[in-house]
Amino acid sequence: MILCDIGNTTYHFLDKEREYKESVKLFDPSSFKDIVFYICVNVEAKKLLKHLKNWIDLSQYIDFSKYYATMGIDRIMACEAITQGVVVDAGSAVTVDIVKNSKFEGGFIYPGIKAIGKTYKNISNALDYSFNFELDLDKMPKNSRDAISYGYLKLLQSEVKSYNMDIYLTGGDAKEFVKIFPDSFVDEMLLFKGMKNIMKKADIC
Amino acid sequence: MILCDIGNTTYHFLDKEREYKESVKLFDPSSFKDIVFYICVNVEAKKLLKHLKNWIDLSQYIDFSKYYATMGIDRIMACEAITQGVVVDAGSAVTVDIVKNSKFEGGFIYPGIKAIGKTYKNISNALDYSFNFELDLDKMPKNSRDAISYGYLKLLQSEVKSYNMDIYLTGGDAKEFVKIFPDSFVDEMLLFKGMKNIMKKADIC
Repeated sequence: MILCDIGNTTYHFLDKEREYKESVKLFDPSSFKDIVFYICVNVEAKKLLKHLKNWIDLSQYIDFSKYYATMGIDRIMACEAITQGVVVDAGSAVTVDIVKNSKFEGGFIYPGIKAIGKTYKNISNALDYSFNFELDLDKMPKNSRDAISYGYLKLLQSEVKSYNMDIYLTGGDAKEFVKIFPDSFVDEMLLFKGMKNIMKKADIC
Repeated sequence: MILCDIGNTTYHFLDKEREYKESVKLFDPSSFKDIVFYICVNVEAKKLLKHLKNWIDLSQYIDFSKYYATMGIDRIMACEAITQGVVVDAGSAVTVDIVKNSKFEGGFIYPGIKAIGKTYKNISNALDYSFNFELDLDKMPKNSRDAISYGYLKLLQSEVKSYNMDIYLTGGDAKEFVKIFPDSFVDEMLLFKGMKNIMKKADIC
């Protein structure tokens, strides 16, 4: 069974135990002859895949009444992976979603590291710093780099901690964010778990 | 006595009781013959003003040991305006600074409304919404517009409220931010108050 999570920049495959990525720009999905169960947030890739019979869109098996109409399929799959907790998916955006007793309880969207770095730089060249993930977030900052790092990191940390729930951390920047959520469960395979759960529910595996 | 707070886009004047703004692009400071006491964060304007003897830079009277080297002069003036509380200055960036017993205790920098709006849009066109300042921030969002509004507004609100101090709100977007800080003191003249305090301390008025 081959699974694929398609984002804005990569096709992320899980082929049994083997996990790998292909660039959205370079990869041709029609070159693939095996059956692939996928989710996709990429508008261009969606158009291509629509016409390929061996690429099966798992979003058709989602009970959308549990979520909301414009919610990203990647967020939904992450929620489907757990029964209780808060999912932090740190990619181009950081999505934070709460699940209680297998029910989606709402969530919010925060800018990703790259995006917010550009934002500060665009406001003023004087704010063009990389974030300090090692910052002591229990102290108010007294220099510019820490002042922007705190603004971005502490506010997110406080909000997520305030739920008093297990934290599941996934996405390309999970390795950075684990520094501010040291007790979280880091799971790069979380979306694939959600996809497998959906397939079990739909009785297709 | 004429005071002027020069930002990236405007010269903000206070001439006795009369307050008005001039565009940085259009205004020629050499056309002004009165004495003006100013602060300036605008690099280009700074160069012009350096050569004009009737424009007096108040930053020379600041005791920088109370602050830090790269801290914006506008943030410093806002801190000089109060003896105790948290200053939220909502402009192109939102700066949040704590003052206890007339001492600066640190602060952080958060993106301004315009900047963060662009950020979400650049991440994905699916996130191109205006913020919902009327949102009930005590409920987890279940739609895209509220999910980004919560991400931006709730996290800032929680952090600022956590200090349990009086909130002083200033800057061009103060009128929007008062919706999430309804008990704050809104004061568009806060920086001018700080400038007057500095002038009293320096014995120049």
